[in-house]
Amino acid sequence: MAPKGQKFELKTPKGTKDWEGKDMVIRDKIFSTITDVFKRHGAVTIDTPVFELKDILSGKYGEDSKLIYDLADQGGEICSLRYDLTVPFARWLAMNRDCQAIKRYHIAKVYRRDQPAMTKGRMREFYQCDFDIAGVYDPMLPDAEIVRITTEIFEGLGWNGRYTIKLNHRKILDGIFEVCGVPSEKIRTISSAVDKLDKSPWAEVRREMTEDKGLAEEVADKIGEYVVLKGQKDLLSKLQDDATLMANASMKAGLADMELLFTYLKAFNALENVSFDLSLARGLDYYTGMIFEVVTEGSAPLASTSVAAAAAATPKPSKKSSGKKGGVDFDEDRSSDPSVGVGSVAAGGRYDNLVGMFSGKNQIPCVGISFGVDRIFSITKARMAADKNAEQVRNNETEVFVMAFGGKGFTGLLEERLSICTKLWEAGIKARAEFLYKIKPKLGNQFNAAEKNGCPLCVVIGEDEMAQGKVKIKEMGLRDGHPEKEGVMVSLDDLVPEVRKRILRKSNLEELVQEAAGLKVVGGIRGEPEPVPEPQPTKGLEGAALTEAPAEVSSTSQEAIPAVPAS
Amino acid sequence: MAPKGQKFELKTPKGTKDWEGKDMVIRDKIFSTITDVFKRHGAVTIDTPVFELKDILSGKYGEDSKLIYDLADQGGEICSLRYDLTVPFARWLAMNRDCQAIKRYHIAKVYRRDQPAMTKGRMREFYQCDFDIAGVYDPMLPDAEIVRITTEIFEGLGWNGRYTIKLNHRKILDGIFEVCGVPSEKIRTISSAVDKLDKSPWAEVRREMTEDKGLAEEVADKIGEYVVLKGQKDLLSKLQDDATLMANASMKAGLADMELLFTYLKAFNALENVSFDLSLARGLDYYTGMIFEVVTEGSAPLASTSVAAAAAATPKPSKKSSGKKGGVDFDEDRSSDPSVGVGSVAAGGRYDNLVGMFSGKNQIPCVGISFGVDRIFSITKARMAADKNAEQVRNNETEVFVMAFGGKGFTGLLEERLSICTKLWEAGIKARAEFLYKIKPKLGNQFNAAEKNGCPLCVVIGEDEMAQGKVKIKEMGLRDGHPEKEGVMVSLDDLVPEVRKRILRKSNLEELVQEAAGLKVVGGIRGEPEPVPEPQPTKGLEGAALTEAPAEVSSTSQEAIPAVPAS
Repeated sequence: MAPKGQKFELKTPKGTKDWEGKDMVIRDKIFSTITDVFKRHGAVTIDTPVFELKDILSGKYGEDSKLIYDLADQGGEICSLRYDLTVPFARWLAMNRDCQAIKRYHIAKVYRRDQPAMTKGRMREFYQCDFDIAGVYDPMLPDAEIVRITTEIFEGLGWNGRYTIKLNHRKILDGIFEVCGVPSEKIRTISSAVDKLDKSPWAEVRREMTEDKGLAEEVADKIGEYVVLKGQKDLLSKLQDDATLMANASMKAGLADMELLFTYLKAFNALENVSFDLSLARGLDYYTGMIFEVVTEGSAPLASTSVAAAAAATPKPSKKSSGKKGGVDFDEDRSSDPSVGVGSVAAGGRYDNLVGMFSGKNQIPCVGISFGVDRIFSITKARMAADKNAEQVRNNETEVFVMAFGGKGFTGLLEERLSICTKLWEAGIKARAEFLYKIKPKLGNQFNAAEKNGCPLCVVIGEDEMAQGKVKIKEMGLRDGHPEKEGVMVSLDDLVPEVRKRILRKSNLEELVQEAAGLKVVGGIRGEPEPVPEPQPTKGLEGAALTEAPAEVSSTSQEAIPAVPAS
Repeated sequence: MAPKGQKFELKTPKGTKDWEGKDMVIRDKIFSTITDVFKRHGAVTIDTPVFELKDILSGKYGEDSKLIYDLADQGGEICSLRYDLTVPFARWLAMNRDCQAIKRYHIAKVYRRDQPAMTKGRMREFYQCDFDIAGVYDPMLPDAEIVRITTEIFEGLGWNGRYTIKLNHRKILDGIFEVCGVPSEKIRTISSAVDKLDKSPWAEVRREMTEDKGLAEEVADKIGEYVVLKGQKDLLSKLQDDATLMANASMKAGLADMELLFTYLKAFNALENVSFDLSLARGLDYYTGMIFEVVTEGSAPLASTSVAAAAAATPKPSKKSSGKKGGVDFDEDRSSDPSVGVGSVAAGGRYDNLVGMFSGKNQIPCVGISFGVDRIFSITKARMAADKNAEQVRNNETEVFVMAFGGKGFTGLLEERLSICTKLWEAGIKARAEFLYKIKPKLGNQFNAAEKNGCPLCVVIGEDEMAQGKVKIKEMGLRDGHPEKEGVMVSLDDLVPEVRKRILRKSNLEELVQEAAGLKVVGGIRGEPEPVPEPQPTKGLEGAALTEAPAEVSSTSQEAIPAVPAS
């Protein structure tokens, strides 16, 4: 045991945080939405260790390698924490030579010893959600499916088209640079300059090209004519009509890929949010074909709003964190810098040569995308905070609170409460049930506990009723005058089916309300919409006018009922 | 980019491994079973960073502190990888003073720089599944719910009573030691000796007590009379009838707790697999009350069997790992040492003073349990390997494979395949659909791809049929003579409901077969039992004699149908 009175600095390490409460619920919902889509497309998951041999990571990240966390040399192998999930995946492919093709996803934490600039959306420990397709296939089919998956994820998250999938192709970019006259040794560095067009105006990028990187002014100006272009098939046709461009082999190959891509995206019904954007360059060196990046509408301004709102809504800001010194402080860091936006929420591309860096003989072409969960989280949370009903997010998923009441000589009916909980836990539908850890609890305290967690159903037992083999089921938050407002007595034998019926009705209602409103994540985690139509036990669920429910809600009911937002 | 031809040692660090393929499927199923139970009891989850400030971990693990992984000092804070999930939870409680009560679970990796002795079931990176209840409550209620949760988890995993939850109480142990005359400064070290009774015979433990630890022989012999005792309420009564014992304050308090516990476990219907076992001592110093440990039947012998079987069934043993040097090698390490068993599969206890080590003022009593997923995994896998149908575990969850066929001039119908996949992905039920990334695929190759992953349904399109607005749905593995053996033609407009109907039927069937056989995990991940009763579309699912399905299976069907094991 540690000596008593030992002083600890009670905090998490710089750039890390604990995830808890409603934030965990929201984050888990984001994970499960993303995972569902990955599985829908036949992906499997691989779990690699948090640390790798240091040699495996060396030479993969250019100058960012200085951000890699090393483990202390305590004897034995020298290891480092993983910096991303792509290099471990490439290492795995190189090690497992009998796997020549795989669709894999991986959702895990990665580590970057960066200045923990919340202003850049950067923590030292953060999650990545990666999906990659490895293998030799007919061209552009995996690439197109990645775009399709991206649309499914953002639609699944309830973004309703409020995002743009920017697409470009390294061969097209290289073609432009070649045609414009960029010397071949300057192509990657000029590409890096172009990559800044989402943050900086053309004038600044042009200055970097000419002054910092020594490009001829007329070459820069020619590039400037191309990189402002964006569109869809129209842009493709325009480029294909340009004989000078088409004479360049790299350009021609890139445009052929884009043509296939557009054909496939049309068949995939995934064209709507796509923008073929010649300014998209991506920083990483290892991309060899398609590149993508997803931005959300009004990216920069939305960012300040969202972050401020998210910070305001954060239930427990760490008391220790103060500005620059402490761990995580969304509020002070980011909102003070108006030039910082949320930036991209997903990005990726084709990398056909990375696996070969580990094993030259076993070259496997790959294409993949990484979703930035932390950014998606803060946007989701901000949208919820902007919604007056966002407080409805529940901490836990308890569906039934079992409580007892009685007059003089009340024993607390503890064993009866335990038995009833057990009955519910053992029921086929696996009802989530809790009770108060108190021998003789007050009724008020039990109701408070149920309400605190937004528990939708209570089972109330009393001595006289128990003697008659009866218990009361009470739905929380029914409007005044509702026939079940005061609860309904049911036989103990019918308890499980009666509870099950109500849980099912609630979850069906929730689903319908969500579908009707096109909500999904944001709606799905906002709490339980109350079942407002009169209970119609004889007609069953089918008969109830479920989608009209929210309109009928009385404002006097105990829990606020979320209205369905117009958007 | 790294220089070409750079040599890498292609392996994971010592004591770590990649999780992939069927192992991932099994492990995920174990996680979801455990998580479901935690949530059913109202728990929320907290995610803490993988590394903590080194000071937080110091002084918590006694001499095992040398096993802690440190991060390199790259400037800034000194951090270490977490060693367990309990200390970070206690740190969190101390930091979050407005949380005075919580049920939390945490499933995450922990790190121990131990000799990676697979023979002891120890990896350097491994998962823990922790559930803890913190807060001041009426005595023994949280403790009893922990036991109840433990039974739900092992029943949920399909262990069908093949486990024992050993219970004891630190105050009872201390009472025995005091009554027997152990000097107070020797109580913890004698307790450690008793803790070895699950591995060593009494004679050896007695020798350690007397020779190594200098305990008087008559004292050791008195202890020997008690620590062999086990039972349930009978043992409790026996101890309560012993006036000498009851005169000891610690013993009296411990027995009062146990009496409450048995009352509550009875109401929880959780007594069946419980053993009140006076030999249970647990190593960790910080336990202050109830302690538990779960062992599985025939623990030591089952271990050798299970590990050998698991190793034999491992699809891809790492080619690099060789005995002591390499990463993970179940086979050579463990089966060569017959004295090593699987040991406990879960363990925990009450620790009322740990939070106070971080913050004296904010003392919060806690009780918790940690499930050893790696051990549970190897036992599960061994049981599946012992089952001739275990090969049925599927790698992915694809439900529908969309394929095309045609004669001369066959185009491949690629866009049509993409459209049909899209239709399925967009369907309400979210069918998991795949297709071959090939413009003009051969029918055989498409069937092979579907079969390789055990995909249960195919949608086959041909040019003529498409022209008539029709496609064929084919269920894989139907017996010869089955009316749908060659597939059924459906209108393109009916495709989604027809596919949905078949997926639903399959998943219902699977559930019923599992329930009938009491399988759960092992059954749930063994693949899709084929629907053998004749399709009865007019009667719907209710009419089919589903539970009798396996008996009718023809051995000639394409995929082997798992028989329902007797046990």
